[in-house]
Amino acid sequence: MKAALAYHRPSIISRSIFFSSSSSVSLSRSPILKYYPKLNTNNNNNLTHQNQILHGSGSGSGSGSRSIRIMASSSASVAEQARAPPALPLPTPPVDKFMIALCQITVTPDKERNIAHARSKIQEAAAKGAKLVLLPEIWNSPYSNDCFPVYAEDIDAGGDASPSTAMLSQLSRNLNITIVGGSIPERSGDRIFNTCCVFGTDGNLKAKHRKIHLFDIDIPGKITFMESKTLTAGETPTIVDTEVGRIGIGICYDLRFQELAMIYAARGAHLLCYPGAFNMTTGPLHWELLQRARAVDNQLYVATCSPAREAGAGYVAWGHSTLVGPFGEVLATTEHEEAIILAEIDYSLLELRRTSLPLLKQRRGDLYQLIFSRSMASLSSEEASGSGSSSSSGQEQSEQCGNYSLSTDVSESESCSCSFSCRRFETSSFKLDNVISSSGGR
Amino acid sequence: MKAALAYHRPSIISRSIFFSSSSSVSLSRSPILKYYPKLNTNNNNNLTHQNQILHGSGSGSGSGSRSIRIMASSSASVAEQARAPPALPLPTPPVDKFMIALCQITVTPDKERNIAHARSKIQEAAAKGAKLVLLPEIWNSPYSNDCFPVYAEDIDAGGDASPSTAMLSQLSRNLNITIVGGSIPERSGDRIFNTCCVFGTDGNLKAKHRKIHLFDIDIPGKITFMESKTLTAGETPTIVDTEVGRIGIGICYDLRFQELAMIYAARGAHLLCYPGAFNMTTGPLHWELLQRARAVDNQLYVATCSPAREAGAGYVAWGHSTLVGPFGEVLATTEHEEAIILAEIDYSLLELRRTSLPLLKQRRGDLYQLIFSRSMASLSSEEASGSGSSSSSGQEQSEQCGNYSLSTDVSESESCSCSFSCRRFETSSFKLDNVISSSGGR
Repeated sequence: MKAALAYHRPSIISRSIFFSSSSSVSLSRSPILKYYPKLNTNNNNNLTHQNQILHGSGSGSGSGSRSIRIMASSSASVAEQARAPPALPLPTPPVDKFMIALCQITVTPDKERNIAHARSKIQEAAAKGAKLVLLPEIWNSPYSNDCFPVYAEDIDAGGDASPSTAMLSQLSRNLNITIVGGSIPERSGDRIFNTCCVFGTDGNLKAKHRKIHLFDIDIPGKITFMESKTLTAGETPTIVDTEVGRIGIGICYDLRFQELAMIYAARGAHLLCYPGAFNMTTGPLHWELLQRARAVDNQLYVATCSPAREAGAGYVAWGHSTLVGPFGEVLATTEHEEAIILAEIDYSLLELRRTSLPLLKQRRGDLYQLIFSRSMASLSSEEASGSGSSSSSGQEQSEQCGNYSLSTDVSESESCSCSFSCRRFETSSFKLDNVISSSGGR
Repeated sequence: MKAALAYHRPSIISRSIFFSSSSSVSLSRSPILKYYPKLNTNNNNNLTHQNQILHGSGSGSGSGSRSIRIMASSSASVAEQARAPPALPLPTPPVDKFMIALCQITVTPDKERNIAHARSKIQEAAAKGAKLVLLPEIWNSPYSNDCFPVYAEDIDAGGDASPSTAMLSQLSRNLNITIVGGSIPERSGDRIFNTCCVFGTDGNLKAKHRKIHLFDIDIPGKITFMESKTLTAGETPTIVDTEVGRIGIGICYDLRFQELAMIYAARGAHLLCYPGAFNMTTGPLHWELLQRARAVDNQLYVATCSPAREAGAGYVAWGHSTLVGPFGEVLATTEHEEAIILAEIDYSLLELRRTSLPLLKQRRGDLYQLIFSRSMASLSSEEASGSGSSSSSGQEQSEQCGNYSLSTDVSESESCSCSFSCRRFETSSFKLDNVISSSGGR
């Protein structure tokens, strides 16, 4: 009977072979987390609360209580480590239910027409009750490397230098709505970005997301595009508190990188908005799949907005703008023609889904950890090569979770009440009292 | 004209408000990666090679070459940091094309019948040309907390103590196939695990995966299940080199945790196998979505295998075993009845898809980083609370990427040729020359 003898427990010898690898790695919680001393302290209340919930549910379960308690305790402690900085609990949203509008609009080479057309559709959406309006990627310009520099606007300068965002600012204030303004080519110095602006109900620019992952793909015979020929990639994730909840922003190809959605989920996003223009190859393959995946994995709402399809355009968009719920369910969608999708978002579902499937508490932070590092590109060379000291003096100054910050709207009040507003470090606020005159609208 | 004045560049003052947060974090590459000195050296060739490819493609592109070169260079360097340890290049698989069989079999309370039935179906699959056979989750026992302890087997003891795995070992050798043996309840001391065994064509146990994320969910009125009442969670990811490629293993609920698939992809997996028994609620909602998401996000094959549905069972499985390709496309699937799905896997598609969509090279390691930490639960308390020194002496000994190792089959040769075999630390190899007699078969 060879069978009973044949099993080898890992012996000292075999362990030593495993261990003596020239590629050995030592990683435990402490060396990583010693760089987050203040954060850990700050999040202590939340984490302790989570522990209590988990311990409570496990400790009174009769015959299996011992093993349950051990499991729950273990789960609670390791789950905290799956995100660094630790995941925030879901914040209470400012509204429970509201209408979102996805404006899948046509885009032409006529920029003035595009602006007027977008204005008209935003007004229509608001008239139908939308409190949040999402526009498509590159809605003021044809989608091409030739056009990006020509149609680009200086968003930071504002006013006449950025008629597209001026229109959005005016409408958001006049209509008392939040606008996630799709994206437009943005000129900043000698660089061009693919940029999404978020406007609050007061007409202020609350956040500006520059597409982080540039669309450089080559599917021979199908679709080849290299945004990096003309565009520069953004350097920070963008998550913003609005009057319709905490929103994480991605643009099109950003959707393919699951880490971005994971970061937003860990910072308490209720909703992810992805303006995007997938094409006739990647659209049918991946558009719906990716947004449903981000929603179900992160248990939040995902909204996408594409331009309507123009068969004769140089780049033919897939369309199919969609709203997905926190179970990955398609709540509203459309085909490829121009349309305004109006759908209700009900944030009470977020807690419900997360109670049913407590994925955040079940993560194995002892096995894996997603770290949100600050953008090295925004560091000086001294910082980039720094020793990793956690001191916050001099050039080693640091930010929470990359470029997010604990701050209210500092540009308005220059004070900090330390409510978590999740604004991008580079975010600015400005009011446009003088906007371009509308050639369209009602 | 208020507009032009209204924009605030982040000033020293506003920066200081951002920076002076009590939750500040300092994280740059160096403090993390200083714990991987040997790994970085070891992976140098691969990374350099990737850099050269990326630089090469960018530097000769005419008018846009300067910006492209900068982008490519930046991308290459930051992409390396998105995984720690850095992602391995895809290894050359031992076969390009082969047939996989997903045996969606019925499971009854009669364990002997279940074993005989599985034997029969594996033989049938092999006779039809399958080189890899995948079985469902918990195929030798009804899926219930009451049954797990009763049907559990001592896999480590082998022989009569584990008739289910003895059958798998015998068949894999006799039929010259690889078997990813679904899962069975495993007894180890006073603990019970939900365990998947992988057998090579020589009949050896190549890997043993214990379900890492236990299925504890509560969807009121739909499905409530608490595996943690009886089961203990596994402590390590499991990735194994077989004669049909490098395979990462997850069991059912493991599928919900994207990090596990990301780990496997970064360690060079060609294929992920998930034995799973989703139910009549989560099945239609998420079963296909999750496996397609893991495939498209990680650009590899994903195979799942469910038990066939038994309407009268205490736990009703969804069925729908599926093979998904590296574009997230469903290559083969079935309904809920008993079936053997035979489908071809073509690994040449992996390189093709990754060349078209070079996601691995486009990741933003300057913004996020997924760390695969070793399992703290397998450390002694001194190690768990250790200082994080990277020394590899004494109790601070360490392993590469958690519990993977650079090793050949040490239990056979006691030598180490340092080919990367990605075996679990706890993996043992054993041969079962004496197996239980089959009551079924052909």
